[in-house]
Amino acid sequence: MTAPSPPSPEPSEPSLEAIVSQTVGAGFPQDLASYLPLLAEDLREIDGRLFDTLHSTYPLLTEAAVYACRFGGKRMRPLLMAVGARALGATSTRKIDSLAAAFQLIHTATLVHDDVIDHAELRRGRPSVARAFGLPQAIVAGDFLFVRAFELAAEYPRAIIRRCGDSCADLAEGEVLQENSRFDLTTGREHYFRVIERKTAAIVAAALASVAEIEGGSPALVDAFQEYGRSLGVAFQLRDDYLDVYGDPDLLGKPLYSDFREGNPTLLSLDAYAELSGSAKAEFERLFALHRKRPRELLRLRELTERTSAPTRAAQEANEWANRAIAAIRPVPEGPFRLLMVHLAHGAAARPY
Amino acid sequence: MTAPSPPSPEPSEPSLEAIVSQTVGAGFPQDLASYLPLLAEDLREIDGRLFDTLHSTYPLLTEAAVYACRFGGKRMRPLLMAVGARALGATSTRKIDSLAAAFQLIHTATLVHDDVIDHAELRRGRPSVARAFGLPQAIVAGDFLFVRAFELAAEYPRAIIRRCGDSCADLAEGEVLQENSRFDLTTGREHYFRVIERKTAAIVAAALASVAEIEGGSPALVDAFQEYGRSLGVAFQLRDDYLDVYGDPDLLGKPLYSDFREGNPTLLSLDAYAELSGSAKAEFERLFALHRKRPRELLRLRELTERTSAPTRAAQEANEWANRAIAAIRPVPEGPFRLLMVHLAHGAAARPY
Repeated sequence: MTAPSPPSPEPSEPSLEAIVSQTVGAGFPQDLASYLPLLAEDLREIDGRLFDTLHSTYPLLTEAAVYACRFGGKRMRPLLMAVGARALGATSTRKIDSLAAAFQLIHTATLVHDDVIDHAELRRGRPSVARAFGLPQAIVAGDFLFVRAFELAAEYPRAIIRRCGDSCADLAEGEVLQENSRFDLTTGREHYFRVIERKTAAIVAAALASVAEIEGGSPALVDAFQEYGRSLGVAFQLRDDYLDVYGDPDLLGKPLYSDFREGNPTLLSLDAYAELSGSAKAEFERLFALHRKRPRELLRLRELTERTSAPTRAAQEANEWANRAIAAIRPVPEGPFRLLMVHLAHGAAARPY
Repeated sequence: MTAPSPPSPEPSEPSLEAIVSQTVGAGFPQDLASYLPLLAEDLREIDGRLFDTLHSTYPLLTEAAVYACRFGGKRMRPLLMAVGARALGATSTRKIDSLAAAFQLIHTATLVHDDVIDHAELRRGRPSVARAFGLPQAIVAGDFLFVRAFELAAEYPRAIIRRCGDSCADLAEGEVLQENSRFDLTTGREHYFRVIERKTAAIVAAALASVAEIEGGSPALVDAFQEYGRSLGVAFQLRDDYLDVYGDPDLLGKPLYSDFREGNPTLLSLDAYAELSGSAKAEFERLFALHRKRPRELLRLRELTERTSAPTRAAQEANEWANRAIAAIRPVPEGPFRLLMVHLAHGAAARPY
């Protein structure tokens, strides 16, 4: 297997300022806007720490690893960590920079491996690492990103490292759980939530609980941050699954319908399947179970979904989890950064990409 | 992609006592034999620590992870670490158990991912994890093993964790370096040694240097252990490559000729290619470059290799590296465990599997 050569000149990534205002979401009050440059600066620090650990004596790996990290996406996790630290009174992200970089690296590592597993060609508008550098390089680059993440995490007390490691294990367990339910619509809602709590929410919860701990928050605040992260993570994943059918592929940077295509049951398909009856239900089941689906079969699955209340319910469900996240941070001191945490929760459930 | 069901009842692994005496190698003096049960006990402690970290709240991952670890092979790394600790006066492996388990987990994680990359069906006489559980599960299980390894390593001072992480990065770099030279016989000896020093030797060197540091060895002893590990690691890999052509597939637990098949240049193929001339050289080059090789093409590569001094030179080279390892441990206090370190170095270069 020879590696295809990496693609030539890349488009440039939006500025961190633009990313912050997009991730915080539209419609935030004007008086919060003045904090956004500060947060862009925080992200710059965290990105700096991240790339410092990649530029090393490993020229071949550095290329693929930097490629994977260069388009860092929405920066939801580091942004949540920065806002969380500031909500607890931190005047900089100095104490959490390495941990935020570690969580961002872990997130990127799992995306690199996910794209191997799902044969994904595109990620954030560019060829996936697997596509750009080859499958072996993608597997090894993902491992390298994990290793670097753990070296960064090693700066922190053992309890933080353990929480970070356990959330990675949760994530891995969630992926296997999901893998084992591929093409199976009988698994039900409960199983779906079990998957996404592990696959997505656990790591956001661990990141935020760690921030609270590092910033000297009380046990009640650590719990509040943990629950905020968990609920926001669920809302985020629900929105992700929704956007996979109803998003704008140009904004998403990848084609739609990957869950239909890969046979991953989501709330949309599970609820649609539960609600449909007769020949429509049978058709939905048959199409969903196909291991190779043609474009018109994907569109047909969407059409059948739209005959049900599943899309509305999925959007509602995401909002409910965002509200749970917001309720969890009542013990956090009032102020602009708590307000930003509220906006980030709404944003996770309602973002356009 | 649905996972094939895991295989039914497995053969049992040889006892740790048998593994120790096989790994230490034939022909050790009778007075050393009395230490072997002690070392088997050390391995039992290390295995215990390893499996304790796997049996967790992750039932799905546990199954694949335990499967990957159950046949732990020669236990070269943990055995070297145990013997090394005792050579420096340790009366138990208590202080290094977690680190030895971590290195064994890292080693296993890379084998699991290697088998994905190389499409290997067999590992240690059983279906590879990728084969038994499916490719996605193998990728994720490998990640899980890495995560657990780093959680174990987190018990140690930061310098140890960093050395462990850097050696993993070396390993990943070595794999990409190797990947980039697939099917290419013009890369030469120097490139080959660069690959195996990173891919195999770096992690053995890091494991042994860490043992010396944990057991309170002087900087000179840490260096000695590091160099011993590095040279022994090179000898080990040279022998591995030799056995891939001249070993007994039943003993190895996997088919021969994987390097020919995958187009990985080794000292055997590089030296043979350099020495051959005329039509034999052209044939060797042509066959080696085939991405799919038939059995008779593999046998023909072996035949052509045997027309040269490459097999003899490869065996000599392995012995020379074993001798370098032995020379490195002159500063280690004399005694039965230093003598066992000598035997382990010879064993790495001359083992039958």
